[in-house]
Amino acid sequence: MMTLYDCATAPSPRRARILLAEKGAPHQTVQVDLRGGEQLGEAFRRINPQCTVPALVTDEGSVLTDNAAIAAYVEARWPEPPLLGRTPLDKAQIAGWQWRVEFEGLMAIAEALRNSSPAMANRALPGPVDYAQIPALAERGLARLQRFFAALDQHLAGRDFIAAEQFSIADITAVVALDFARAVKFRPGDEHPHLQRWRAAMQARGTMG
Amino acid sequence: MMTLYDCATAPSPRRARILLAEKGAPHQTVQVDLRGGEQLGEAFRRINPQCTVPALVTDEGSVLTDNAAIAAYVEARWPEPPLLGRTPLDKAQIAGWQWRVEFEGLMAIAEALRNSSPAMANRALPGPVDYAQIPALAERGLARLQRFFAALDQHLAGRDFIAAEQFSIADITAVVALDFARAVKFRPGDEHPHLQRWRAAMQARGTMG
Repeated sequence: MMTLYDCATAPSPRRARILLAEKGAPHQTVQVDLRGGEQLGEAFRRINPQCTVPALVTDEGSVLTDNAAIAAYVEARWPEPPLLGRTPLDKAQIAGWQWRVEFEGLMAIAEALRNSSPAMANRALPGPVDYAQIPALAERGLARLQRFFAALDQHLAGRDFIAAEQFSIADITAVVALDFARAVKFRPGDEHPHLQRWRAAMQARGTMG
Repeated sequence: MMTLYDCATAPSPRRARILLAEKGAPHQTVQVDLRGGEQLGEAFRRINPQCTVPALVTDEGSVLTDNAAIAAYVEARWPEPPLLGRTPLDKAQIAGWQWRVEFEGLMAIAEALRNSSPAMANRALPGPVDYAQIPALAERGLARLQRFFAALDQHLAGRDFIAAEQFSIADITAVVALDFARAVKFRPGDEHPHLQRWRAAMQARGTMG
């Protein structure tokens, strides 16, 4: 059976957790204590030298150490329901939105949080190398994420899903991004009616944890 | 026929150009003058409101505005030879390396260049919104890209390709990243023998432009 190295409070492994739930893919879960630094210790380094979660150990014993690899693997092993799209154009729209939610959403939030939080001094990037915080990058991240969620709200007007008129991995990533944004005190308000409606519909799926 | 909006001197559209050449996918090319700011003008904004290249107009008239969407579309329309992998594990390894080359390689180089070049003042990020340069981010980008290429050199020891023992989109992205790094004065040296051997083998394919 597959093993997911997870951390219940962190956004990145939550993406893998929701994906596996949506696919109904059988797996066991091991919690990694990120706040206690377990990901940087010898034992976890032997599992994933990148020192990050999620890490997914497949049935064959391969270790997949990022969400891109995990999504490609899970979609190929459990094709139904397709979460990366079925037709060429659907696949394109889902991949494009996935990229945009990652780059304009998740990364902007991570920039804002990791470059400002006292608890993350010298941890401005994930992984084994320490990087100092850059306060100006935290400010830029905040500006970017506000623009992104305003644009996403407009995009969701009249739409039930982010891409290709179907539930997809882009919805999963955007749910995780929106909830993660609370860490930098962003919450959707009255000016984001479409975002709020879409988020409530996603919750009703019962897979968002 | 498909139309690729391209810019011969820029790294992002080069990724799409090589992909289409490797697939032998028929298309015409329109050059966009990025130095002259044509991507920010009204005419191009009507084609791609993101104001970026590459943009690929499909046979059906859909506009794909980033490399993630273009790769997913082209792979689905022209499955042979597969550049995103064939088996679940190959797909995972290629997607994982693609992500790593983008995040640790291309983005680090873009951070280093866009936050330091006098010609890119207020253009620290691509797209329609101006962002001020952050000098500390330029420095961090330089440190990250040197670490990345050192790690990639080690990874390529005894390997002909970046992922899954086959030519893939991860090789295309890494070629573009390595050549783009010249813009911030990084070139592989004697300490990168595997990177140099791999880069020469990629050139011999005749598709790298």
